[in-house]
Formats: sequence, structure tokens, C-alpha cells
Amino acid sequence: MLTQLPFSRQTPPCPFHVTSVLCMRTHSSLAGEDCRHSEFVTVTMAPQYAPSLRSRLPIVTLLLEIIFLLLFVFFVKIEHQDQVYREFDRKTFILLYAEFQDVHVMIFLGFGFLATFLVRYGFSGSGFNMLVAAMAIQWSVLMNGFLLPQRHHNREIYINMKSVIEAELCAASALIAMGAVHGKLNPVQLLLMALLEVTGFVVNQWILQTLLRADLLYSIMLLHIFGGFFGVMASWVLHRDRIKPKHEKEKTDRRTGLFSMLGTLFLWIFWPSFNAAVVYQKWDRGLKLSVIYGTYLSLAVSVVVAMTVSMLTSSKGKMNMVHVQGSVLSGGVAIGVAMTAVHTPWIAMTIGLCAALLSSLGFRYMKGHMLLAFECHDTCGVLNVHAIPGILGWLAHLFLRVASTERTIALEFAVHHICVLFITLCMSLVRGMATGLFLKLSIWRPQQDRKCFDDQAFWKVIGRFNPHTLQYH
Amino acid sequence: MLTQLPFSRQTPPCPFHVTSVLCMRTHSSLAGEDCRHSEFVTVTMAPQYAPSLRSRLPIVTLLLEIIFLLLFVFFVKIEHQDQVYREFDRKTFILLYAEFQDVHVMIFLGFGFLATFLVRYGFSGSGFNMLVAAMAIQWSVLMNGFLLPQRHHNREIYINMKSVIEAELCAASALIAMGAVHGKLNPVQLLLMALLEVTGFVVNQWILQTLLRADLLYSIMLLHIFGGFFGVMASWVLHRDRIKPKHEKEKTDRRTGLFSMLGTLFLWIFWPSFNAAVVYQKWDRGLKLSVIYGTYLSLAVSVVVAMTVSMLTSSKGKMNMVHVQGSVLSGGVAIGVAMTAVHTPWIAMTIGLCAALLSSLGFRYMKGHMLLAFECHDTCGVLNVHAIPGILGWLAHLFLRVASTERTIALEFAVHHICVLFITLCMSLVRGMATGLFLKLSIWRPQQDRKCFDDQAFWKVIGRFNPHTLQYH
Amino acid sequence: MLTQLPFSRQTPPCPFHVTSVLCMRTHSSLAGEDCRHSEFVTVTMAPQYAPSLRSRLPIVTLLLEIIFLLLFVFFVKIEHQDQVYREFDRKTFILLYAEFQDVHVMIFLGFGFLATFLVRYGFSGSGFNMLVAAMAIQWSVLMNGFLLPQRHHNREIYINMKSVIEAELCAASALIAMGAVHGKLNPVQLLLMALLEVTGFVVNQWILQTLLRADLLYSIMLLHIFGGFFGVMASWVLHRDRIKPKHEKEKTDRRTGLFSMLGTLFLWIFWPSFNAAVVYQKWDRGLKLSVIYGTYLSLAVSVVVAMTVSMLTSSKGKMNMVHVQGSVLSGGVAIGVAMTAVHTPWIAMTIGLCAALLSSLGFRYMKGHMLLAFECHDTCGVLNVHAIPGILGWLAHLFLRVASTERTIALEFAVHHICVLFITLCMSLVRGMATGLFLKLSIWRPQQDRKCFDDQAFWKVIGRFNPHTLQYH
Repeated sequence: MLTQLPFSRQTPPCPFHVTSVLCMRTHSSLAGEDCRHSEFVTVTMAPQYAPSLRSRLPIVTLLLEIIFLLLFVFFVKIEHQDQVYREFDRKTFILLYAEFQDVHVMIFLGFGFLATFLVRYGFSGSGFNMLVAAMAIQWSVLMNGFLLPQRHHNREIYINMKSVIEAELCAASALIAMGAVHGKLNPVQLLLMALLEVTGFVVNQWILQTLLRADLLYSIMLLHIFGGFFGVMASWVLHRDRIKPKHEKEKTDRRTGLFSMLGTLFLWIFWPSFNAAVVYQKWDRGLKLSVIYGTYLSLAVSVVVAMTVSMLTSSKGKMNMVHVQGSVLSGGVAIGVAMTAVHTPWIAMTIGLCAALLSSLGFRYMKGHMLLAFECHDTCGVLNVHAIPGILGWLAHLFLRVASTERTIALEFAVHHICVLFITLCMSLVRGMATGLFLKLSIWRPQQDRKCFDDQAFWKVIGRFNPHTLQYH
Repeated sequence: MLTQLPFSRQTPPCPFHVTSVLCMRTHSSLAGEDCRHSEFVTVTMAPQYAPSLRSRLPIVTLLLEIIFLLLFVFFVKIEHQDQVYREFDRKTFILLYAEFQDVHVMIFLGFGFLATFLVRYGFSGSGFNMLVAAMAIQWSVLMNGFLLPQRHHNREIYINMKSVIEAELCAASALIAMGAVHGKLNPVQLLLMALLEVTGFVVNQWILQTLLRADLLYSIMLLHIFGGFFGVMASWVLHRDRIKPKHEKEKTDRRTGLFSMLGTLFLWIFWPSFNAAVVYQKWDRGLKLSVIYGTYLSLAVSVVVAMTVSMLTSSKGKMNMVHVQGSVLSGGVAIGVAMTAVHTPWIAMTIGLCAALLSSLGFRYMKGHMLLAFECHDTCGVLNVHAIPGILGWLAHLFLRVASTERTIALEFAVHHICVLFITLCMSLVRGMATGLFLKLSIWRPQQDRKCFDDQAFWKVIGRFNPHTLQYH
Repeated sequence: MLTQLPFSRQTPPCPFHVTSVLCMRTHSSLAGEDCRHSEFVTVTMAPQYAPSLRSRLPIVTLLLEIIFLLLFVFFVKIEHQDQVYREFDRKTFILLYAEFQDVHVMIFLGFGFLATFLVRYGFSGSGFNMLVAAMAIQWSVLMNGFLLPQRHHNREIYINMKSVIEAELCAASALIAMGAVHGKLNPVQLLLMALLEVTGFVVNQWILQTLLRADLLYSIMLLHIFGGFFGVMASWVLHRDRIKPKHEKEKTDRRTGLFSMLGTLFLWIFWPSFNAAVVYQKWDRGLKLSVIYGTYLSLAVSVVVAMTVSMLTSSKGKMNMVHVQGSVLSGGVAIGVAMTAVHTPWIAMTIGLCAALLSSLGFRYMKGHMLLAFECHDTCGVLNVHAIPGILGWLAHLFLRVASTERTIALEFAVHHICVLFITLCMSLVRGMATGLFLKLSIWRPQQDRKCFDDQAFWKVIGRFNPHTLQYH
């Protein structure tokens, strides 16, 4: 009790949350006193703030935005107004606009709120998601317009429903990659990573569509595989030792668990539109329906399997909300990659079942293993939610096509299919590593290890009143 | 200060929330010490965990999912692709897909987040809602396909917009029933209850449609009455004495009040689509519009009346958020049951006014009375939100039809109408009681009374840091 | 315990949360006892509650609702059912229904959750938004029907997609005005203010459409300018001295910041539909597309600029969530006012860039200046989000039209355009001031200064358990 006296005289003015972090490490000893101790300790150590990005972020964003704007001035037009009088286009517009809005909600609300699951990283999770997606969309419209042949006429890029839907899907691949480094990079790094990822993804699509004559429907759905491996590779290069085995701030609570449930639900509900949005043509109408119903059923089965496995693999029989939120989406990923080959409900459901099984087991056993064995930290588990279910979907696609056609065509298809995956994997791994190395440059002012997963590095957070320290934190 | 010493030696390992509950009872004495006292008390009592469902839930869910999957293999197909080329079907699809998405949002997000209003039950509220709805939808597709005659051709069930919309409505009736037992059953019990409810509801629809030649539009909207009474009856059979007069954990706060506001708003906003989604045919176009505008106006009036009555019946003139959230929806329920007979705006508004009035008064006066007099605890107040406004809508329907037709037809209609309600009520009450008795079996491992309304029985909740005990709870 | 006496004589009669604020000021002394001190004091002094509205709100709402209902009985019908069989109307309905739902989500969810950003005002923010919007919509349908000539045939008002979309836009102008007085008025005052604002806005539209022959598309989008200045003027008249320089409760935290992020995202995502919803006619199809894509791109640029400027103008390089949430929307406002003159993507993006720049700088520098220099407190910053970007859009409209037509027509247009703005400004300022004076009457029982920004004046909030005082607050 004596040790308490000196403390109460000093009552240091340190921010509370640092204190609590330190307390965590020592809470095997007597609680009350230690906390005051460590509070004292915190003060004596030099207070380290995350480096200010005031001299970095504005330059990068404004420079890029002005470049984008100039490119839009010279190359981009809104779709010809006399085109859209035609009956066909109008009907297409009506249908596509509804699906586009669903995808739009997924990109900004779904991914944004899914990324709020860390206790102290909600503002950054949703805010930087919005910033990055808004820039990635503009860049995707330009990249798609320049590279992909069917887009531009006479050097002009037209903005229409197709171009914005595809731009949002490209942005989705960047947001998936960001999931792996979630909380460990500052907004400048995130922005550059996203733009490099989009560039890589569109170049990959260009290679697949021009060299291998792959269909758009097929090549664009590889976004899960490309984004997942790109992100994991970048995260591996950017590994920080201090977040091993587990960073103190990398946790969720009742509040953030519900916010990320909200994002998960938006993604889950609108996933049928996400997969069906790129099925445009008239002759694809039947395909559009089977994609919508297939995705719907696959996701329904994923929910059941994700919760079951999460309970089954826990020693106390308690489900883990973060695992469940990731795994329920895996059915949509797998069916997305396989969608052009799935025409019966039960195959879609089986794919959803397998995807959720793999994903749940991956969350429980592989995520920690990845960190310990390979020093690769994957915050949102994109490997388990996107990359591995994507590979599963690819396998299902291969198997279904090979089983349904005669041997020579099947063999030809298999070779083509394997080439597509091989190129995509190589591109994503190489470009992910290169991007990671580029982002490691200290010019981007990365935050310190203990400022990871923390909004206070970038946002003015006026916190909750804490009755113990009588301060807002 | 001396009283503190024994405490600090014991530093009990009990989770904080139990402590706080006990503290509540003793907080008339001096605060600081008492809390430590009661913490001590908690420890001396045997720490009881909720029974693990690891050996129950996975068996039930996987078994059911495999049965569903096998039934899908043999009986279910996606709608013929040559059917959907026809112009008519495509237009119908475009319109129905938008409405389907609205209903889909209501089932998973609306009901899910409405169910997060209890302080400690947010994960379960939204998570189990998702699990149960995902299974109920699959089961409804199968049940509707097998039983309802117009669905299947040559023993095959086709998945199309109509079948999924109706499946989601059947799932809604199960989710309504679950509201009455919210927080008091474990997920295995919830799942079984939902599937039994869906079975009962589809059988009831089959009876009404084949024996009484009731219209689909009419019979499916009885879901509010069926689900409400089914749930209340099950809750009555499953009554626990300890939650009388009020369980300590059955409360809301600023945070969960806003989360459930979110769910309420989704339900409220998309309710016009919920009522109009089952109005398919071309000749019903006029009906579709009057349903949409009628529901819209009815709900607008409900909001005004719900808030007014909530303030008027409070002695301090303070509104109750939980009551308001329930009552604003009652206008949509009542108009849904009466919708085929309502063609003018003011009648819709009057129905909304009466429904909100009854519902608000029910929340304030009847809910507690039900518990004390009949030992029937209805957590979400489904009696006031769904059952009673449903009966009101039924009465309005009867009155409007009888008033607008000549006497003999009116009499015939009245007899038919009363039979429909009578059968539905009997079915729901009897099946609700039977289901309650079935769920009472100890084989399902119900949680203890004090583990009711608590996520920690089923989820790993990594909580907020508590500065008093220096632990996460 | 003796130290408690002197302190307890001084301490003010505040409820607990003020206590905690006071504790803040004295926390250099020993924490634990002081806090108990003030708690002790709190009990002894007379607790002041906000005046009960039980005798005001029910009278006002029920009286108004019954008047509305009677007007609906005599004047309003649902659109003729034989009209909607026509092919054209059905297609229009399908498209408009989707856009209407987007606008509906924005009004109730977007504005409702944007208004939850204050720590203690979430229930009121979302609840009163719902109440006010529900009444404003009914009143708008009536006002639009009576005043605007093209609406009514033979004294009958028809409810159709156009009338409800316009009613929601009128309600939006009232909700914008409410933003300026957010947290400082009670629900009776809010309701009266909203209905007076809607009346003023529709009268203004009537003047513009009949006297100046302004287009509906153009006059209705002035809702941002009208609502913004109306609200600011009312707030100026209703100024309270105590909330200068900053009220203790006027702050945000991690939780409410995310809830208002949710509202912001809904507004941001669906803004293209908000602007395009009033573009009905067939010949406007091209315009509809350019409005949708223009708004989309303008908003994307706004996000980038809003975050950049928020970081650039902060001394520590930290973004402010509240500023960002306001400024990201400004691009949609500006493009909305200018939309009929914008046909190329880059002009839309430039307008978005300028709007976000002005809005961000306004939040950082003008908001405080307005309060100190003009004693005008604008809680949600509607001046920066709606009024000033609206003026910017008006200027862009003027400039684009003048630049693209020959001189005489340009001059004529400029005079007309300036008249429109002048009339709108005069109307909004005069009516805003009159409304402010009317609401100042003590008959409406305004809450005390220290009950501003607090749910507890109007809602039963069962709060979070506070481990220090062992009470719920």
C-alpha cells in the first residue's frame, strides 16, 4: 500500500490507453498497484507520437488527383446521349443500375465496416477504405479504358454502367489486398499499395484477355486470388517483429464486433449482385439467373458451416465472431470464380460447404501458423476468406468443365485454365513483393510498432470518459 | 483502507460482469468496498459456465444441412433457362429482383440488428438470426415446393424469384416467433424451433390454399399472426421463473439502442417492398401500387403515433426507445394483412394509426401484465408488434370487404375469413405449445437462468477494458 | 471524510455527467475521494430535469396528424389504376421505385444516423429525424399537391412515384435546416420548424415555377441553399449564450463517430440517385445518365480532397472525423445545383474538388468564427455542407450556361438565374428568422442550456454501468 503514495502525488498526465497496454503485460502481479507503476513508467519514457503525415499525404493525394483530373479532361466522356435512347440500352441500364448500387454499397459500406473490427481502428478502417476506394475507382476507369481493347473508341473512354461496375470490382481487389496489411500501414502507403495493386490487376487482366483470350467474366473474378496473394505477399515483406505473437491492440469487442457484423452482412446480402453484375449480354440471361441463385444458396450453406466449424474447433464450444464473419463470405468467393460452370443448385451448395469448411479451419489453425512459421501476419485473414476459397472455386471450375466435355476439348481447357491461374499467381506474388519493398522505404514515414492498429496516429479521437483516470481517451 | 487488504490477496478470477450484477443489489452501501466484497462473494459461489454445445450444435446443423443438400440434389433445379428469354419474365425479374433484395436486407439486416437491443446479447442476436434464417430459407424452398401445388412440375422444384421471395417470408415468420424467446434459448433450440415453425406455417398455408381456396397473397401475410402466437405460446411453455419480474441483463443502453434502431429503420424503410413483393401478376399492377403507397403512408402515421403514445403514457414524459422501435413497425404489419382490401390513402393511414396505438399501449401496459398474470415472457414484444396488429389488420380486412359488397357475398366472405383466422390461430397455438414442450427436453442443454441474455454462453467475447478490475470483460 | 465538507458546499447541483466534468477540473487532487465528494453533493442539491413535454408534444402531433388525415380523406387518391397499365408508366415505375428506395434510405437512415454523432444525443438524433421526416413527408405531399399546378387534377391530388419522391426531397430540406439547431431544440420545436420550413420551401418553389417559370429540376435542387440558410438564420435567432465557446456535451467519440460514418456513407453512396430521381422524362434520359455519373465522380473527388485538407489544416496532421464526414458530401450538393449544365466528367470532378475544398476550410476556420463573431452556432455545419457548396453549384451553373450560349441569351439567363437565387435567399433568411422568433416562445418549453445535446431530456436511457459510481448512467 505504501507504493501507492508516491504515485498519487505524481498522477501523471499520460494518455490512458498506453497505460492499459502496459498493464496488460504485467497483470499477473497485483493489479491495482502495477497499473499505477506502469503509468509512471510510461511517463518517464519519451512520449512517442506517430510521425505526422502532413508533409506526405497531401502531396501524394493532390498530385495524383490532379493527374487523374487531367487524364479525365483529355480522354474520358460520358456515354453518348444518342446511344442510350435505344430500347435495349435503357433496359440494360435499369437492371444494371440496381446491381451497380448493390456493388457500390458493398465496396464502401461492406468493406468499410468489415474493416472496423479492431477496437481502436474503426475510424481508419472505414475512413481509409473510403479514401482508397474513391481513388482506386478513378484509376481503374482510366486503366481499364486504356488497356482493355473493347473499352475505348478513337482514344476516348466512355463512362457507362459497365465501366463503373468493372472499376468497382478492380477497387474490390485492392481492398482485399489491403485486408492483409490492415492496421500496419499509414494512409499514404495504403493509397500507393492500392493503386499499384489495381495497376497490376488490370495488367494481369490485359494479359489474360489478349494473350490467352480469356473471357472477361472469368478473368475479372480472379480478383479474389490476385488481391489475396498480393496482400499476403506485401504483408510478408513488410513484417514487423513486434506484432508477434499478438499485438495488444489487435482485438475486437462487443461494439466493434457488431459494426463489422454490419459490414459482413452487407457483403453477404449483396454478393449475388457482385457476382452477377458483370454478366451483361442478352444471351447470358440464363447465366445471370444461375449465378444469382447459385451464389445465394452457396452463401446460405456457408453460414451454417462457418458457425458449426467455429464451435466444433473451439475447446470450450464458443464461436469466434471474427472467424465466422470471414468464413460466411467464402462461399460467395468460391462460387464467383466457378460461376460460369455451375448450373445446378446442389453443386453451388457443395462449393459453399467446402469453401466455408476450408476457410473456418484456416482461420482456426493456419492463421497463427502462418505468423509463427513464415512470419506472415494477415490481419483480416484474406488468405482464408479470398485466396484459398478462390483456388477452390478455380478447382471446381476445372473439374466441372472437364467432367462435362469430351476428352480433347477438356484437355485443351485444362491447359488453358492452369495457365490462367499460373500467370495470375506469378503476377500477384511478384508484384505484391515489389510493392511491399517499395512501401518499406522510410520516405513514407511508417508508424512505430506500437502505433499500429491505432486510430490516434491519424485521427483526432475524442474519446469516452474514463472514470478511473478522469480523462477522455 | 484496511478492508482492501484481504481483497487484494484473493484477486478473484471471476469475470467482471457477474460482479457488477451482484454489486447492483448492494449499491446502497458505500460503493468502493462493496464492490470488492461482492466480487469476493461471487468467487465463493461455484463458477457456473453455460453448458457447451460442442457435442450438440454441430451434429444437428451438419445432419440437417446434409439432408437439405441431398433433397436439393434430387428435387431442385434452377428455373429453365429457355423460360426466362421471354420478354415478360425478364421484366418481372428486373422488378422482382429489386424487391427481393429489399426483403433480403430486411430478413438478415433488419431482423438481425433489431435483435441486438440487449446489452450483452448483440453477437447472438445478429449471429443466430443469420444462422437460423439461412437454414429456414433452404427448408422453406423445399417445403413450399413439396406442399404448395403450383410450385412443382413433374416432381421438380424450380428456384426462381417467386420461390426465394416466399422462402424469405416463411423465414420471417420463424424469426418473429424467435423474438418471443429471444435470449432464453440456445442456438440448437432456436434452430429446431425455427424449422418446426416453418413447417407449421407452410402446412397452415397448404390447408388454407387447398381446403379453403384462400389466395396466396392473403394466406402468406398471416405470417405475422402465426409467428407471433407460435412464439408467445412456446415462450409460455418454456417459462423460467428467475426472469420474473426482470432479468438483470435484459436491458438496453445507448450503444445497443442505436444498433437496434438501425435494424428497425431497415425494416421500416423496406416494408413497402415486403408487402408488395408477393403481388406478382400483371393484373395486380394496380394492387401493387396501392400496397406500396398504402404501406408507406401507414408506416409514416405509425411513427408519429408510436412516439406520441410513448411520451403520453410515461409519467416523466420520456419516450422509451424499445417501445418506439417496436410500435413504428406495427402499421406495416396491420396493412400487410389487410392490403388486398385497402385502396385509398386515408384508410391505410387510419389502419396505421390504430395499429400503432394498440401496439404502444400494449408495450406499456400489457407486456408486464402478461408476465405477472400469465407467466408469459415475451422479450421482443412480438405480441404487440406482430400478433395484435395482425389481428387488427384482419378485422380491417373483414370490415372493408363486408362494407363494400352486397349482403350475401359479404356473409359468405365473413364466414370464410373467420375460418381462416380460426384455423391459423389453432395451428399456431397448438404447434407452438408442442414445440415448446419438445424444446424443454434437457437433451438440448438449455443454459442456466443467469446465462440468459448473455453472449458469453456461446461466443468468445473479448470485451472492453474495465479500469476498475483491470481486466477485459 | 472530513475533506469532503468544504468541497460539498461549493459543488453545483448537477446530475452525474456534469459531475464528471467537474471532476475533470479537480483531478490534480486525489481522484477516488473527490469523485465521491461531488457525487455526495449532487444528491443534496435539487435535481433539475428538463421540462416534461407530456402536455405539449402529444397535443401538437395528434392535432396535426388528425388535420393531415382529414385533408387526405378529402383530397388525396392513389394514382388511377388504369393509368398504370400503360407500358410507359410501368417502366418508369420500375426505374423510379429503385431510385425512390435509395432516396428513402437517405432520408431516414442517412440523415438519421449522420445525426447520431454527438455522444449523448444518438437516440434523439435518429428518433426525432424519423418523427420529423414522417410528418414532413405527409405535409409535403399535401402542399405540393395544392400549390404546384401540374400536380392536381379536379382538385384531387394523386399519390405516385413523382409525388413521393418530391415529398422526400422537401423533407430533406427540412432535415438540413434542422442540422443547424441540432441538439438545441426540443421535439415540439423541431416539428414546428420542419413544417414551417417545408411550407416556406414549397411556397418558394411555387414562386419560382409560376412567376419565374423555373424548371422543377432546377428549383427543387435549391433545397440545399434554402434549407441551409433557413437553419442558420433560425439558429442565430435562437442562440444560447451558454454553448459558447463549446458545450461540454457537444463532442463525439469512437462509437458515435462510427454510427455517423454509417449515415454519411448511406448519403454518399446513394447521392447519385438523389440527384437523378427528379429527372423523369423520356427526353431526359441522357441527362439522367450524366447526372448519375457526374454526381458519382464529383463525390469520389470530394472524398480525396476532404481528407487531404482535413489533414493539411491540422497542426498535428490528424484528420477530424466530423469535418471529413461533412465535407465528403459537399461534392454531391454542388453538382446537384449545377447538374443540368454539366455534361463532361472533368467538370463534375472540378466542381467536386472546389466544393470539398471550400467545405473543409469552412469547417476548420469558419465554423468557430461564425460562433464568436456572429453568435451563430451551427451544430452540424450545414452552412459548410449545404449552403456554401450550393452557392458554388449555382455559380458553376451560371458560368457554364453563360459560357456555352451566345451573348443575348446568356445575359437573359444570367438575370433570371440571379433572380432565382435572390428570391430563394430572401425567402429562406426571412422565413428562417420568423420561424426562430416563433420557436423562441416559452410556450414550447425549451430545455435548459445544460440539457442541450442530451438524450436524457426526452428519452429513458438505461445507460452503461459505471464501475466507479456503481450506477447506470
